[in-house]
Amino acid sequence: MHSVGICGSDVHYWQHGRIGDFVVKAPMVLGHEASGTVVKVGSGVTHLKPGDRVAIEPGVPREMDEFCKTGRYNLSPTIFFCATPPDDGNLCRYYKHSASYCYKLPDNVTFEEGALIEPLSVGIHACKRAEVTLGSKVFVSGSGPIGLVNVIVAKMMGAAAVVVTDLSASRLQKAKEVGADFTIQVKNETPQEVASKVESVLGCMPEITVECTGVQACIQAGIYATRSGGTLVLVGLGPEMVTVPIVNAAVREVDIRGIFRYCNTWPVAIALLASKRINVKPLVTHRFPLEKALEAFETTKRGEGVKVMLKCDPTDQSP
Amino acid sequence: MHSVGICGSDVHYWQHGRIGDFVVKAPMVLGHEASGTVVKVGSGVTHLKPGDRVAIEPGVPREMDEFCKTGRYNLSPTIFFCATPPDDGNLCRYYKHSASYCYKLPDNVTFEEGALIEPLSVGIHACKRAEVTLGSKVFVSGSGPIGLVNVIVAKMMGAAAVVVTDLSASRLQKAKEVGADFTIQVKNETPQEVASKVESVLGCMPEITVECTGVQACIQAGIYATRSGGTLVLVGLGPEMVTVPIVNAAVREVDIRGIFRYCNTWPVAIALLASKRINVKPLVTHRFPLEKALEAFETTKRGEGVKVMLKCDPTDQSP
Amino acid sequence: MHSVGICGSDVHYWQHGRIGDFVVKAPMVLGHEASGTVVKVGSGVTHLKPGDRVAIEPGVPREMDEFCKTGRYNLSPTIFFCATPPDDGNLCRYYKHSASYCYKLPDNVTFEEGALIEPLSVGIHACKRAEVTLGSKVFVSGSGPIGLVNVIVAKMMGAAAVVVTDLSASRLQKAKEVGADFTIQVKNETPQEVASKVESVLGCMPEITVECTGVQACIQAGIYATRSGGTLVLVGLGPEMVTVPIVNAAVREVDIRGIFRYCNTWPVAIALLASKRINVKPLVTHRFPLEKALEAFETTKRGEGVKVMLKCDPTDQSP
Amino acid sequence: MHSVGICGSDVHYWQHGRIGDFVVKAPMVLGHEASGTVVKVGSGVTHLKPGDRVAIEPGVPREMDEFCKTGRYNLSPTIFFCATPPDDGNLCRYYKHSASYCYKLPDNVTFEEGALIEPLSVGIHACKRAEVTLGSKVFVSGSGPIGLVNVIVAKMMGAAAVVVTDLSASRLQKAKEVGADFTIQVKNETPQEVASKVESVLGCMPEITVECTGVQACIQAGIYATRSGGTLVLVGLGPEMVTVPIVNAAVREVDIRGIFRYCNTWPVAIALLASKRINVKPLVTHRFPLEKALEAFETTKRGEGVKVMLKCDPTDQSP
Repeated sequence: MHSVGICGSDVHYWQHGRIGDFVVKAPMVLGHEASGTVVKVGSGVTHLKPGDRVAIEPGVPREMDEFCKTGRYNLSPTIFFCATPPDDGNLCRYYKHSASYCYKLPDNVTFEEGALIEPLSVGIHACKRAEVTLGSKVFVSGSGPIGLVNVIVAKMMGAAAVVVTDLSASRLQKAKEVGADFTIQVKNETPQEVASKVESVLGCMPEITVECTGVQACIQAGIYATRSGGTLVLVGLGPEMVTVPIVNAAVREVDIRGIFRYCNTWPVAIALLASKRINVKPLVTHRFPLEKALEAFETTKRGEGVKVMLKCDPTDQSP
Repeated sequence: MHSVGICGSDVHYWQHGRIGDFVVKAPMVLGHEASGTVVKVGSGVTHLKPGDRVAIEPGVPREMDEFCKTGRYNLSPTIFFCATPPDDGNLCRYYKHSASYCYKLPDNVTFEEGALIEPLSVGIHACKRAEVTLGSKVFVSGSGPIGLVNVIVAKMMGAAAVVVTDLSASRLQKAKEVGADFTIQVKNETPQEVASKVESVLGCMPEITVECTGVQACIQAGIYATRSGGTLVLVGLGPEMVTVPIVNAAVREVDIRGIFRYCNTWPVAIALLASKRINVKPLVTHRFPLEKALEAFETTKRGEGVKVMLKCDPTDQSP
Repeated sequence: MHSVGICGSDVHYWQHGRIGDFVVKAPMVLGHEASGTVVKVGSGVTHLKPGDRVAIEPGVPREMDEFCKTGRYNLSPTIFFCATPPDDGNLCRYYKHSASYCYKLPDNVTFEEGALIEPLSVGIHACKRAEVTLGSKVFVSGSGPIGLVNVIVAKMMGAAAVVVTDLSASRLQKAKEVGADFTIQVKNETPQEVASKVESVLGCMPEITVECTGVQACIQAGIYATRSGGTLVLVGLGPEMVTVPIVNAAVREVDIRGIFRYCNTWPVAIALLASKRINVKPLVTHRFPLEKALEAFETTKRGEGVKVMLKCDPTDQSP
Repeated sequence: MHSVGICGSDVHYWQHGRIGDFVVKAPMVLGHEASGTVVKVGSGVTHLKPGDRVAIEPGVPREMDEFCKTGRYNLSPTIFFCATPPDDGNLCRYYKHSASYCYKLPDNVTFEEGALIEPLSVGIHACKRAEVTLGSKVFVSGSGPIGLVNVIVAKMMGAAAVVVTDLSASRLQKAKEVGADFTIQVKNETPQEVASKVESVLGCMPEITVECTGVQACIQAGIYATRSGGTLVLVGLGPEMVTVPIVNAAVREVDIRGIFRYCNTWPVAIALLASKRINVKPLVTHRFPLEKALEAFETTKRGEGVKVMLKCDPTDQSP
């Protein structure tokens, strides 16, 4: 392994030992935003050879079930997934993974870019499910890391205008930096008021809303804000039960769609990184050698910077 | 005009003077499930001539706005719609309507079949939005008139199995008659229990749920019941705010879609009626001449039969 | 193995030793329309157990490549496929196959119905690619076995009217029997004349044409016949290079799509067979025990009947 | 009227009096790439008022037929279209047009940008039909004006790599300037050789080919070049009958789709121009006042520059 980013879920498992129904019952290796170098391949592997630099997609279906056969393998109930208990992650020196889910990195893509494909994939999957396309007006609710990747991806897919909301002015500043056309700092507004402000800055209601907070009031705002016939994608997860203006959504044919991780995003991301159409390097704000993993996790826990990267190869700590 | 069916909304306007934000402020003609005979056409009309028997689509966009241009004219905010205040309906002897929304009936399709295209359209639009296709397993929640047309349409679109739930055994009997493969009489079950029973009778979770009651517990059951990657279509409308297990839907990528009336359904329905693939005639259980409209409305209000038809042509009261 | 149908390609390999680039260079077992009983399963198999009756999908991808991951595994270039050289088929007593591509048959579906899923799948895949839906008007060019399954499937998917053309009156009679609404016996017509006749009997141009002959003049007729904005699906294969009125197709936005075998059709077909919505039993016109395979192949070669079935289980020759 | 671009079809009608079946039988005003200022509106118009600067979509459906109702109004057979005989164009001082097809220009979009929406729309419609999306690898065949707009649009929609072929090195240079990642100057290659070169420079076969020449060999190359499961869009139009390797396309499920003009592109283009995501201004290489229209047409006929713009407002000749 070469570079492994720390995700909020890693910190959560470390601190709380569980996320929802997923409970850590035995020691588990963390890490699922990873890249490394192939040292050995199985006899049937033809697309990789020792020495190849690869990005690792953490979810590997265990069965060729109906979800896999129809191209939605992320929904396969028996899928293996790095660092979701009880499956070990890849924050370690050596790691074995299905070759079909290791993707060769072109020479002009760094290991860290390879590791960042994982968070980027959330944005790709969300924006694909949202059907962002040329000229879309997009409302991204929440300007945390996931909100930011959605801004980046929506713009790359041709969105004409992206507006981002958040409580924090500094996070909105980040949104501006990655390409948001407009930002709105929200405070005590009602959901309808937020929707109204979104329409006001865009000059029209957005066809697409990507909700990245999971907060009930934000989901409500997402419904009110979205243009009739549009789509609200739920990326942020909050309480299990949420009260929503369902009639408002239904009679305006605003579709509500969630996402579960991602599928078919690594080849897309690698093609984009190789073409230099996207610059994710600035997202890495901290680096630690694997031996200082505790320090790295503490840093992430404190919410410093954007992405903390662990360097697993003692002989090569380069990006 | 020849035959005009009475819809629940007609009765509602008659009794309460409003449905949601639509308020009857001046005398309004009711009726929007209609067929009749052309007596006169405008100079630019080429596809119709006096004497043609036609079915009337009640919604006519007033502007060629973006919704119309993209094929979703039902969402056009300025649309004219028969018997939605302040627009007059067509429960009368003579009526003027945009020729583009009058569809010629083939000789082998009756006026009453023509009038029944309106309720049938709700099922067509819902099942199209649900993407029912060959081999689909479908859960229809609610066995009222709208549930029934969804059963009929889902089967016609190739659904392999349709299960219907309702409180009433007699309504479920109707579902059986129009083609439901399974019925479940529900009582005090939790939403999860309903979902479990649906899976049990189908032998698998349905890819598609069509919710026709608008009741909160039924919407919840619809989410729990639908297979990962599937679709829940909301047809029934209940309270504006509803509490739903949104995380359950989101992380299993169960899409939630509503419908608003319908679009592009008349040509489909006429083709099906002409091909004799569908038999809606039994739905008409009562007929009254226009002079006895009050009696007809009282009958509908009492919930008798399925569809009450008013006969507007004193010289021809045939089906 | 229990029942294995003989396909035209089996006969072709037997007689000519090749189909296009696929050349039989070593002895090869024929057969790919098959069903049987599980006698043993691998340690990881959970959905099947010995004694289960199964239908066998003959194509099994060897790699989890991009085609598989996106749900189009039929296009995977390294796919294993029964009785396509050099891969052995399953016309034999015992046979080993990937459990993921063996589908359990419900008790009310016979072995022969299970074997017939393979030819049925061609129709399912073609009609799905054609996007047949409720109310479609469909032109099926060619009334051989593949034309017939397309008629059956198109009607099941809600087509309002299907018209079939062929040179042979007796084959058109078969089309009528399986549900075609109209048939046209063609002779010396130009492609434009065929298109004109199709429009004439349907009362409009079909949105969808399914071309099952591969003949140049028929492909041309398919283009001329299809309504603007519609789809021509090429199922029949003829000469590699074909001259077509490409401008006519292009400026009317008539899409031209081919099919390669099928994917994701077995679960659909089993659901339909289990629901008794489709009756394929009459397609089996001849049965031979495995020992009389030669006689069975001679019968197929002579073009007798529709489907010849070989019975591989000496203890059970039932349908 | 303010600015009207000259299109190849304008020159063709001027020189030859016909394009295919469209024959100029009476004097006809040319011009269909236009923008201007509203001087008067009908009583029912609410979205425009005198003084508004507008871009003009030249195609206006005359009937609300099935094509219009389903969002594909460009296919409506009775559509009015500027400067397609017998319909007059708008290369003049004053012109009357359906308000629904006049789109208000934001203050930061110039008249000439507004006029350029028309050629841009061809690229938007083609790339939408091609389903270009994030990470797409795209092969654009032909580097003329239409090829160039397809390069621009494909990149804006998130294409990771675009390769362009042409006979002319100078035209390929233009492709580079507008964003092509790779160019290939072709000469005497066979279609298969072109396909091979495309794969070689991209590192894989493109999922999408946009064919802009109409030349038979190029259409053939487009089929051979496109990845299995991909799409070939035909934009260039050549001879009516073309010989193509149809089996190659069919068995690899390479879809072949044409385009006819465009629909629903003006709002998209205006949103993009307003967001400054796209710079089309350099495309205008020549400007002439309306009085010098003949000179402008002669310039276009000689193939000088890229886009010649006629300035129809004697009081304002600004871009």
